Amino acid sequence: MPASSIPDSRFPIPGSTDIVLAFSGGLDTSFCVPYLQEQGWRVHTVFADTGGVDAEERAFIEERAAELGVASHVTVDGGPAIWEGFVKPFVWAGEGYQGQYPLLVSDRYLIVDATLARARELGTDAVAHGCTGMGNDQVRFDLAVKASGGYRIVAPIREIQKEHTQTRAYEQAYLEARGFGVRARQKAYTINENLLGVTLSGGEIDRWEAPGEGARGWCAPRSAWPAEPLQVRLRFAAGEAVELDGRPLEGAMLLARLNVLFAQYGVGRGMYTGDTTIGLKGRIVYEAPGLVALLAAHRALEEAVLSKQQNRFKPAVARQWVELVYEGFYHDPLKADLEAFLASSQRMVNGEVVLETRGGRVDAVAVSSPHLLHAQGATYAQSADWGVEEAEGFIKLFGMSSTLWAQVNGAGNGE
Amino acid sequence: MPASSIPDSRFPIPGSTDIVLAFSGGLDTSFCVPYLQEQGWRVHTVFADTGGVDAEERAFIEERAAELGVASHVTVDGGPAIWEGFVKPFVWAGEGYQGQYPLLVSDRYLIVDATLARARELGTDAVAHGCTGMGNDQVRFDLAVKASGGYRIVAPIREIQKEHTQTRAYEQAYLEARGFGVRARQKAYTINENLLGVTLSGGEIDRWEAPGEGARGWCAPRSAWPAEPLQVRLRFAAGEAVELDGRPLEGAMLLARLNVLFAQYGVGRGMYTGDTTIGLKGRIVYEAPGLVALLAAHRALEEAVLSKQQNRFKPAVARQWVELVYEGFYHDPLKADLEAFLASSQRMVNGEVVLETRGGRVDAVAVSSPHLLHAQGATYAQSADWGVEEAEGFIKLFGMSSTLWAQVNGAGNGE
Amino acid sequence: MPASSIPDSRFPIPGSTDIVLAFSGGLDTSFCVPYLQEQGWRVHTVFADTGGVDAEERAFIEERAAELGVASHVTVDGGPAIWEGFVKPFVWAGEGYQGQYPLLVSDRYLIVDATLARARELGTDAVAHGCTGMGNDQVRFDLAVKASGGYRIVAPIREIQKEHTQTRAYEQAYLEARGFGVRARQKAYTINENLLGVTLSGGEIDRWEAPGEGARGWCAPRSAWPAEPLQVRLRFAAGEAVELDGRPLEGAMLLARLNVLFAQYGVGRGMYTGDTTIGLKGRIVYEAPGLVALLAAHRALEEAVLSKQQNRFKPAVARQWVELVYEGFYHDPLKADLEAFLASSQRMVNGEVVLETRGGRVDAVAVSSPHLLHAQGATYAQSADWGVEEAEGFIKLFGMSSTLWAQVNGAGNGE
Amino acid sequence: MPASSIPDSRFPIPGSTDIVLAFSGGLDTSFCVPYLQEQGWRVHTVFADTGGVDAEERAFIEERAAELGVASHVTVDGGPAIWEGFVKPFVWAGEGYQGQYPLLVSDRYLIVDATLARARELGTDAVAHGCTGMGNDQVRFDLAVKASGGYRIVAPIREIQKEHTQTRAYEQAYLEARGFGVRARQKAYTINENLLGVTLSGGEIDRWEAPGEGARGWCAPRSAWPAEPLQVRLRFAAGEAVELDGRPLEGAMLLARLNVLFAQYGVGRGMYTGDTTIGLKGRIVYEAPGLVALLAAHRALEEAVLSKQQNRFKPAVARQWVELVYEGFYHDPLKADLEAFLASSQRMVNGEVVLETRGGRVDAVAVSSPHLLHAQGATYAQSADWGVEEAEGFIKLFGMSSTLWAQVNGAGNGE
Repeated sequence: MPASSIPDSRFPIPGSTDIVLAFSGGLDTSFCVPYLQEQGWRVHTVFADTGGVDAEERAFIEERAAELGVASHVTVDGGPAIWEGFVKPFVWAGEGYQGQYPLLVSDRYLIVDATLARARELGTDAVAHGCTGMGNDQVRFDLAVKASGGYRIVAPIREIQKEHTQTRAYEQAYLEARGFGVRARQKAYTINENLLGVTLSGGEIDRWEAPGEGARGWCAPRSAWPAEPLQVRLRFAAGEAVELDGRPLEGAMLLARLNVLFAQYGVGRGMYTGDTTIGLKGRIVYEAPGLVALLAAHRALEEAVLSKQQNRFKPAVARQWVELVYEGFYHDPLKADLEAFLASSQRMVNGEVVLETRGGRVDAVAVSSPHLLHAQGATYAQSADWGVEEAEGFIKLFGMSSTLWAQVNGAGNGE
Repeated sequence: MPASSIPDSRFPIPGSTDIVLAFSGGLDTSFCVPYLQEQGWRVHTVFADTGGVDAEERAFIEERAAELGVASHVTVDGGPAIWEGFVKPFVWAGEGYQGQYPLLVSDRYLIVDATLARARELGTDAVAHGCTGMGNDQVRFDLAVKASGGYRIVAPIREIQKEHTQTRAYEQAYLEARGFGVRARQKAYTINENLLGVTLSGGEIDRWEAPGEGARGWCAPRSAWPAEPLQVRLRFAAGEAVELDGRPLEGAMLLARLNVLFAQYGVGRGMYTGDTTIGLKGRIVYEAPGLVALLAAHRALEEAVLSKQQNRFKPAVARQWVELVYEGFYHDPLKADLEAFLASSQRMVNGEVVLETRGGRVDAVAVSSPHLLHAQGATYAQSADWGVEEAEGFIKLFGMSSTLWAQVNGAGNGE
Repeated sequence: MPASSIPDSRFPIPGSTDIVLAFSGGLDTSFCVPYLQEQGWRVHTVFADTGGVDAEERAFIEERAAELGVASHVTVDGGPAIWEGFVKPFVWAGEGYQGQYPLLVSDRYLIVDATLARARELGTDAVAHGCTGMGNDQVRFDLAVKASGGYRIVAPIREIQKEHTQTRAYEQAYLEARGFGVRARQKAYTINENLLGVTLSGGEIDRWEAPGEGARGWCAPRSAWPAEPLQVRLRFAAGEAVELDGRPLEGAMLLARLNVLFAQYGVGRGMYTGDTTIGLKGRIVYEAPGLVALLAAHRALEEAVLSKQQNRFKPAVARQWVELVYEGFYHDPLKADLEAFLASSQRMVNGEVVLETRGGRVDAVAVSSPHLLHAQGATYAQSADWGVEEAEGFIKLFGMSSTLWAQVNGAGNGE
Repeated sequence: MPASSIPDSRFPIPGSTDIVLAFSGGLDTSFCVPYLQEQGWRVHTVFADTGGVDAEERAFIEERAAELGVASHVTVDGGPAIWEGFVKPFVWAGEGYQGQYPLLVSDRYLIVDATLARARELGTDAVAHGCTGMGNDQVRFDLAVKASGGYRIVAPIREIQKEHTQTRAYEQAYLEARGFGVRARQKAYTINENLLGVTLSGGEIDRWEAPGEGARGWCAPRSAWPAEPLQVRLRFAAGEAVELDGRPLEGAMLLARLNVLFAQYGVGRGMYTGDTTIGLKGRIVYEAPGLVALLAAHRALEEAVLSKQQNRFKPAVARQWVELVYEGFYHDPLKADLEAFLASSQRMVNGEVVLETRGGRVDAVAVSSPHLLHAQGATYAQSADWGVEEAEGFIKLFGMSSTLWAQVNGAGNGE
């Protein structure tokens, strides 16, 4: 029987024996169901569909939950939440973790949200997840729950890791002993896939060797790239992509469409080594055709409409936002503060961008906006003109401190 | 006759009538020669070859100087200086201006150095350049000179701009009136080319439209990319690329070789809008195959050998270094301070990186180094292990402040 | 006659001969009146009272305007605008320029606003100011006007500086020749005084020598400090000081009261050397008793209620806000973005702070707030507890990257 | 018997039963001696004297060690190491943790260094400390050891905390049971004192209430301040204070002298709430008269001799250095990189500063240096002059982007 817990006004039955498990149908979360049941819990599963599965797999997940005898199972469409809660501010921020990785595992936060929403619906304060005690996802999952109210977290895989070293073998034996089959999945890589993209790690990738041909997700290899270039037109309103080739599209749909279009040309694939939350180096291959295209278009528009001061300072805010999201601080109040900055910076980020790819890379080849900061577009065009004396004055005063330094201290001391 | 000037101990003849002109053989600097001569100067020309011309053009420049009747002409090989003074710290910094532009006009600073070195040789304190009063190069040129000692700067094009609006027509007429021919060069774009790469602007590029087919420098179009992938192995010592495919190469040679190799695959081309020193937006197309490949290799090595703390903070230093170099503060003492940081950060940046391209993009597919920060490589490997309680303790204390905030202020207030 | 100008929809009479002069009654702005009149302008004066004068001086300013024959004169109470437009966000930011100077000349922006409001009232697009071409105030004044619409700026003192070197003598002679008296004011220092505080420069201060006894504004010397300590209680709501010792007070009144209270104890006096906009070093003495007390109280509250992540990052935003305001970018859109961040960060900055001074310095001796982030205050107090294994786990993972680095590269290489 | 450990080339006897304990003579480290002995260790004690004790206490510590039957005891003069390893770079950095706290507990790192040096001398790899599992010092201690080679850390207090909650009572009983007396010390506050200053916490301080009269270290109360002002002259060479009132002094001596001088006037006392490493808020009172005076003098000199670019950027480096030192990353390679920056920035920080206090606060009233960046001091004084057109040109181009933004987007949109 679960231990009792301090009551929270939001939960009608704090000591409830109902528990909500974030469920994916894989080995770890399948194991969690009987394990939790045998601890006395009534297990309810939630599958937050953030885009990594097809209809067949979705059906399999539902059947699997039923087979395992859950008290209830719900599938939640995670698309709108992932667009609103992650993609929008991420594109505003405009850069990946350590300047590279487009935070493809950020769907975790939306999975937590869906899990907690289900717990509130059921009137329980107990939630479970299938994260191990070795990885970075547990940090994201736990911190997101802790910042969302007085929930109890049960992490069965971490619990068995306290006793067992070969946990996957243990889980498999545990399930089979109870009559549940286990899908044989011998995979060369650890793969994570959702609407945002595909992340691959493990094997030779971990050893800083060249990824094998099998280390591939959505992105077509060079040999399969279409010969003709692709052009795509995106319209942004307040920094949010709202139209694709003149057609209004909901965010998640638009991103899915960009994924398909640019994956054909191998756009958005990369590999990098990241400093993970847990302190170890993590080398991965990632493929995010849609996000990378979106970032390229948005950046091209921003460069043209933000003031110099804005373009200079914004990356410091962006970098901090990215680090918070990467490391589990999705609900820290600083994140809201940074998003207030980012939202304010997007006021004039309206207009259209033409993206083009001929393979391998995407370019923002054209930009149009009523807010383009070109001198000709200014109402008072003449004020953009200046005379030579003015330029000389600018150079003199702009460089004054630096020049004085050299005069006082002698040339060459700068180096 | 030039005005007299305050003496500087480094100049034997402060009121000298010798002047050294940074010379490229183009219309502007050709005009400067008779213009300065008619003001009473003995004009000496310097061509600092930073890699933008072939042997034929180099010969043309020498002949042109002779034709214009200069007192002396020298050609300086700018390769070693551009590697040592710009490429090395730029690669250490690891990012372009506003996250994009690889500072391809930074050869200006080395041109200034060569010009001043010649002035000291000739015992004069007077130097001239052909920059206009409208652009950003005048800032780089003037500030670099001002920070290098008590030189007099004469800028003939700026001088005539005080009187004339159609300066190029004026310059042409002026030269023709004195019997000097003018090469007819009707160019669709303003092009700048040197060892670092090619920069194109003007025409439709300025109007944020898609660059035409002619807006192309070294990078092969998709149709010309070789079918076979290219692999290149670079060895770094203290952050400096010192070998290509196992062969030691001097920096400038190595960069030139990378330019040729990766240009074939269209690597290193980009377009962006920058906030220029002078405050206007400047949209350009750039092609820097070698620099972009070098940056990719160096970054992959750094990601794997720097500590998390180093990888987190270094971009702030990098960005500031890049802004200083972009805006003319090449000799500000802050630049030396930043380079002291960067040099220190490169102590362990030793090892080999394999770059691969299949067209359009370059990937650092493999990294090897004695300094790779993987737990297995550690002498005390066991210390990288941790138990589940330890992971839970980490999560609890790492997220403590954030969790307390949510507990005190209520969940959901974070947003 | 003033030159014509491009029309702006907001101005009914673009070519109007009415001009609005920001007027203080001093030599410079007194000179401007007849000077502008003789150029054909109908001169309207505005005195934006930002707190630097008493009733007598205010009366003098009005009489002076009348004596000079202005078409109209208005006095505007600048208090509310300076609180709302400057003090509030400045206290949120929480630090001075270069970590020191509390931006005491920021009233300029509110003076510009009052001047432009008067111009719109009068239906003219022409405004004038008495700034010289040597200082930093002209940058603040001009940039604020330029960012506020298509106004014409006339700067008479700058105009005469093009011809005359001894401008103050010239101005005095000019006024006397037209029958206007000039107040004899031989001052040892350049003094600027307003609600925010007093700034002194010039004389030995400029020479980095010890300021003389006369270099003193509001702050009592040690010999005059009361023997008894002073305690003041401030209440903040969303980061804004709203009550003093339990009494609700409008911002400008509250600041004025703090100035009086803390000046008695010599609190808020300092001296520093700043890097001015114009590039030169500027050494000044400043006295800002009220602002310094306000900053101390607000900081103490913020330290106790913001999350660690907020306290860590906020100074980067603050510093940028301060630099923008110091350098004239009061209307740059980045300032609004930064203020969106700052406003968001103040959501929980509610509570009371007790300030205490015994002379020379002010301390925030006590803080109370419903948002204090102490573990005991948390609803789920037990979650702040941790075991020793958890602490060890935290240390291990928190320091992992650093420890691995030392293991791989050998101890002592860090230094 | 201690467990065996992987050998390290630097340790001749890895499985040695000798252990070196960082010893202060207090309850915790006194307890550690018999506790470790009973585990089979030969205990050697080191007292690194970082300035917090007088000769009597030093003698007591030695006697105490002997009484507890240690195998050996050494007292190390920590002064030079604390100056070189902490004070110098801290003053270069120039700011406290979270802009306030002058890192007074940084002597921990030098204590670790002295402890490890003794271990190497004795040929053992085992070290012990008396930190608890609740505080922040254990993070500093453990991370510093982990980054210094393959040492084994034994932390007896943490070990007993796994079993016992009232550890101090347990320790006292344990000692008394073995015939060792325990000094009765009922203290209202937790006090930490060393050459750097005094830190007080606990009691009402923890509750954000006004500290009682007893919460006082070195700083004289107002009633005891001398009536006459104090002036002190400091000379800096490359950013290091090397002379006091014309007399060369070794660093630690100079700091000790400043502590005495300025404590009389109550200078350097403050209180603040910090976000500790462990994630909790920690409110403390601190008194650091010497360090605060040193910072004030150094800052005044830096403001006058660094370029504007240096003064602008340096705080970002400083803040990062301070956070690393506060949080235990004393040996992270980033710290060395930041110190390379800081050392470079100090090249011209030579000269004299006069400090003055009249009580409560210290001011740097005068600065002299051959590197003062005043226009008059420049060899080419005239270049600091500029005309009005030049000022206007500067304003125009400096504000260009901001002005264009307002023109394109309309005035008032900035807010």
